[in-house]
Amino acid sequence: MNEFDFLKKLKQNFKFDLAGDDCAVLPSANGHDLLVTADMLVEGIDFRLEWAPTESVGHKSLAVSLSDIAAMGGEANWALISMGIPDRLWDQDFLFAFYNGINGLAQEFGVRIAGGDISRCPERLVIDSIVLGSCPSNSAVLRSGAREGELICVSGPLGGAAGGLRILESKARVNTEKGIDSQDPISRQLKPTPQLVLGNMLRVSKLATSMIDLSDGFSSDLRHICEQSGKGAVVYGEKVPIDPCLEKIDPDILLPFGSPLDAALNGGEDFELLFTAPAEKRKDVEDLGCFVVGEIVSDPSTFEMIVEGTGCRLDAAGYDHFRDKP
Amino acid sequence: MNEFDFLKKLKQNFKFDLAGDDCAVLPSANGHDLLVTADMLVEGIDFRLEWAPTESVGHKSLAVSLSDIAAMGGEANWALISMGIPDRLWDQDFLFAFYNGINGLAQEFGVRIAGGDISRCPERLVIDSIVLGSCPSNSAVLRSGAREGELICVSGPLGGAAGGLRILESKARVNTEKGIDSQDPISRQLKPTPQLVLGNMLRVSKLATSMIDLSDGFSSDLRHICEQSGKGAVVYGEKVPIDPCLEKIDPDILLPFGSPLDAALNGGEDFELLFTAPAEKRKDVEDLGCFVVGEIVSDPSTFEMIVEGTGCRLDAAGYDHFRDKP
Repeated sequence: MNEFDFLKKLKQNFKFDLAGDDCAVLPSANGHDLLVTADMLVEGIDFRLEWAPTESVGHKSLAVSLSDIAAMGGEANWALISMGIPDRLWDQDFLFAFYNGINGLAQEFGVRIAGGDISRCPERLVIDSIVLGSCPSNSAVLRSGAREGELICVSGPLGGAAGGLRILESKARVNTEKGIDSQDPISRQLKPTPQLVLGNMLRVSKLATSMIDLSDGFSSDLRHICEQSGKGAVVYGEKVPIDPCLEKIDPDILLPFGSPLDAALNGGEDFELLFTAPAEKRKDVEDLGCFVVGEIVSDPSTFEMIVEGTGCRLDAAGYDHFRDKP
Repeated sequence: MNEFDFLKKLKQNFKFDLAGDDCAVLPSANGHDLLVTADMLVEGIDFRLEWAPTESVGHKSLAVSLSDIAAMGGEANWALISMGIPDRLWDQDFLFAFYNGINGLAQEFGVRIAGGDISRCPERLVIDSIVLGSCPSNSAVLRSGAREGELICVSGPLGGAAGGLRILESKARVNTEKGIDSQDPISRQLKPTPQLVLGNMLRVSKLATSMIDLSDGFSSDLRHICEQSGKGAVVYGEKVPIDPCLEKIDPDILLPFGSPLDAALNGGEDFELLFTAPAEKRKDVEDLGCFVVGEIVSDPSTFEMIVEGTGCRLDAAGYDHFRDKP
């Protein structure tokens, strides 16, 4: 049972029909829908304190939730932060540095910190980042809106965050003589920028018919859109915008990704937006600096990538917390 | 630095002025305020799986957050549940039993499950229970509304949950020959009932001028009301409603509580409501089945209990996750 199978069963069994998109969309009486998202981040699983300045851990904790609001085309308004804190981190300097990272990003996007909770967790720092936002009633861009013939688009280059993670993981064996410029990918991994402005623009302009943020990885996230839209996808390998910083990384370090394209498709955590758009809107999409990488097809069993004229199955190989669990 | 000191410093340093009550109160445009609360519960710290049926762990996770909505006099509408799950608990039967407990209580109070998140946490189950509710604009009952001469009231008998916890903790050394009837206090500990109906009634009738739920313990929670209202308190020991089930518990088992009154004042987790009411409303308070236990005084340095005619300082000795930490 992997993470996504379990969530599917849970929703079916208990009829949790409000759950399942990047945010819950909750009807409100004032012409707006309320958007709510929560992201749980566990030390050693979702982040490592020894690799990151404490501020950046705070920044990223909030950024992943703001990115979920962006993926609905919403405006972010409030955040709550719950924490399970080990005794070793029960220290004002550490905690203030963490909240500095949160607060800096919150102020950048006009988000107010409204509360949260604190408990003890002896082994690991556990963070639950909760963001509330809004958008006009029934205007949130869902995962389920993709239609046959529409363009599959991404908002920016992919794979940089995965490259950064591999550099951090491989630090001990990085050959510094090769002069790896690690600045860019590491910063893509540690300090992602939520695409709130673009997401809102894609909703208001009605360019995006379905949308998700690239957290698990392009292949898995595109699969979510296809499943919830009841459609298939064909992706053109050459069109996928690969983060140029990946070219600078030693292929040995990039392993287990076989290539920069592999990292771009399956790496995750870029927090760019993946969306579909009507075919006639190609120019509008490109004018926004976004990339068209494929198209939606009617057959839901089609999930294909074409590289150099040859088609192959696109596996949903993005991140899953319980991939190999029975 | 204890938990409450830290939260005070955090609020001051970052000007987090929306935080600090049982719920964040967020203005909404439709004549209603949005209420949001999050409660993080860590296995082995805030609950123990070996003592509790899995359903009751789900029940209590949601109950503690519903109780925060009750303490504002609000209506509960939606819940999100984030979980960090150890591999040993990544099992459909366990997880469905947990969600059964959540879902049963949610349905009882018309709350819809709207989402959440899942991560892995190798050592401990970590649960963050998030509830959203609402009340008419500017009507939420805050901790800061207590005035001189008002009555200090509680909604039900206290100490039962603490007694239940002590029975569970002492299980190995319970002398069963003494015939302890452990049903009541254990159920008070494992399956608390959030006082949503009463909380709402206390807001609508304007009986409650300030309110908090009894989670940390009467002495600590009353201190929160006094601090945020800038007032002091005098409590009459004989008036404190002690849960009758405490009388059945062997005093050895009740240790470290020196007496049933001590458990009632400092035990915590009863999830009854503590509120203040105008002095002339005593009869209305009692007609609702609530208990008047003391009165608010003007001097904020007064925090006193009178037992058998003798006054003593009432220490805020309720639960704190980081009480003895430097």
